[in-house]
Amino acid sequence: MCDNKPQGPLPYGPSITLEEARRVMDAAEAEARANGWPMVIAIVDTAGLLVMFHRMDNAQTGSVDIGPAKARTAALYKRPSKAFEDAIANGGIGLRMLSMTHVMPLEGGLPIERNGAIIGGIGVSGMSSAQDAQVARAGLAAL
Amino acid sequence: MCDNKPQGPLPYGPSITLEEARRVMDAAEAEARANGWPMVIAIVDTAGLLVMFHRMDNAQTGSVDIGPAKARTAALYKRPSKAFEDAIANGGIGLRMLSMTHVMPLEGGLPIERNGAIIGGIGVSGMSSAQDAQVARAGLAAL
Amino acid sequence: MCDNKPQGPLPYGPSITLEEARRVMDAAEAEARANGWPMVIAIVDTAGLLVMFHRMDNAQTGSVDIGPAKARTAALYKRPSKAFEDAIANGGIGLRMLSMTHVMPLEGGLPIERNGAIIGGIGVSGMSSAQDAQVARAGLAAL
Amino acid sequence: MCDNKPQGPLPYGPSITLEEARRVMDAAEAEARANGWPMVIAIVDTAGLLVMFHRMDNAQTGSVDIGPAKARTAALYKRPSKAFEDAIANGGIGLRMLSMTHVMPLEGGLPIERNGAIIGGIGVSGMSSAQDAQVARAGLAAL
Repeated sequence: MCDNKPQGPLPYGPSITLEEARRVMDAAEAEARANGWPMVIAIVDTAGLLVMFHRMDNAQTGSVDIGPAKARTAALYKRPSKAFEDAIANGGIGLRMLSMTHVMPLEGGLPIERNGAIIGGIGVSGMSSAQDAQVARAGLAAL
Repeated sequence: MCDNKPQGPLPYGPSITLEEARRVMDAAEAEARANGWPMVIAIVDTAGLLVMFHRMDNAQTGSVDIGPAKARTAALYKRPSKAFEDAIANGGIGLRMLSMTHVMPLEGGLPIERNGAIIGGIGVSGMSSAQDAQVARAGLAAL
Repeated sequence: MCDNKPQGPLPYGPSITLEEARRVMDAAEAEARANGWPMVIAIVDTAGLLVMFHRMDNAQTGSVDIGPAKARTAALYKRPSKAFEDAIANGGIGLRMLSMTHVMPLEGGLPIERNGAIIGGIGVSGMSSAQDAQVARAGLAAL
Repeated sequence: MCDNKPQGPLPYGPSITLEEARRVMDAAEAEARANGWPMVIAIVDTAGLLVMFHRMDNAQTGSVDIGPAKARTAALYKRPSKAFEDAIANGGIGLRMLSMTHVMPLEGGLPIERNGAIIGGIGVSGMSSAQDAQVARAGLAAL
């Protein structure tokens, strides 16, 4: 009865708007602030290009690049950046992921969806990968 | 009595905070929106690294790079990006500016000051250079 | 009576589809072939990323990069690449264009429009700039 | 009688023509379409430079780089890109492949041959590596 699952990856929709990005950003930032976590939060379009970027005070400088890179990974490959982290953690053939372009294989990057289409990605960096992902999920919950 | 004025360019102060950047961004974005101009607005710290970035819907894609580059120019060289534009416009020795690293010689990038110290830069891109600069100045007026 | 001209640049629409690109490519390629011109023809989306690329036999190798770069320029800056060529030819302040990122200031790159929105760009390289542009225009006429 | 087999890898022949590339592309694209797979398909010459590139609608944006990279790997190293994937999967000394220039160690890139000589490469990206390779093989079968 339920075998009409979508085949293949989701399509892309029109890229996230600034107003949608603002809602995602506000929610993600609130989650980070509630936990006292200094984060970089980045939102990109379906081409992986920045739409919105906020760096909280005292976030580690390295996150300025890593945050957008996680968002780009999710948007360009239509999957959470954790998928690549897991492949690498499993070793063997998964290690080939280390050579892929525009892949940042760290948890904390998620595709953003609207009506069954991918409209961009969010990437968070600054604390542990699991905490980064918690903030990203809080952002997505606002859409 | 008062002749001990500082010589040379302003010193750097502690980098702009996210809350300060938010005030600058809100004012710049309001100016752009009031004019119906689709803009990219970027704010960087004293190292030229992003603190905040907003891309308005339908801003030309090229501005995704140009906006931050103008902000970086202002922060890294402690002067408006227009100073480089002017040097190039004057020709001759000024053309050497075309080879400088991290110089985007287009009007629309301004240093951000607090108490006589430079704390970052703002860069705006999307319309004519003069309109870009108008939005950047509106942002600075909020601090 | 006719003063309600569009203000500012055209918006972006959903990016060109493969079938639309095929029509543009076929027409451009036919024009090049009719003239015996070995060309590189590239079509990109609104982010400047390749959708379609054909290199005719014996096209100069340098055009492999220049063709897509012209297309990207048109899509990213919502104007013909010739606009940048002209600015530079005029000298003075126009020379600042030499420093812009993702700008290939050679005639032969044109935005692609659908229903009053920009949906990508076409770039042609291989012969003189004027001949390159003639092939690009022939491609656009097919849409 | 038959022991005078060629030693070492195949030689290079004159690079694939546009018309040959078109036959390969059409067959590969038909295979992808028959399966409902949104793919990027790239064909390169013996120098690894693009001859033809088609991106199907809704192909993941990351494949815009990965498709040509697989084709380049096959053409530059005269072997299927899977050879590098296998080396990495085996671990140990094989991991050095992660550092090689212009190697994309993912299945889906194949050398293109004509009369016992390598004339270029095809690379496919968009679905699983095995599906990518299936489309690449369908392309080769057309020559």
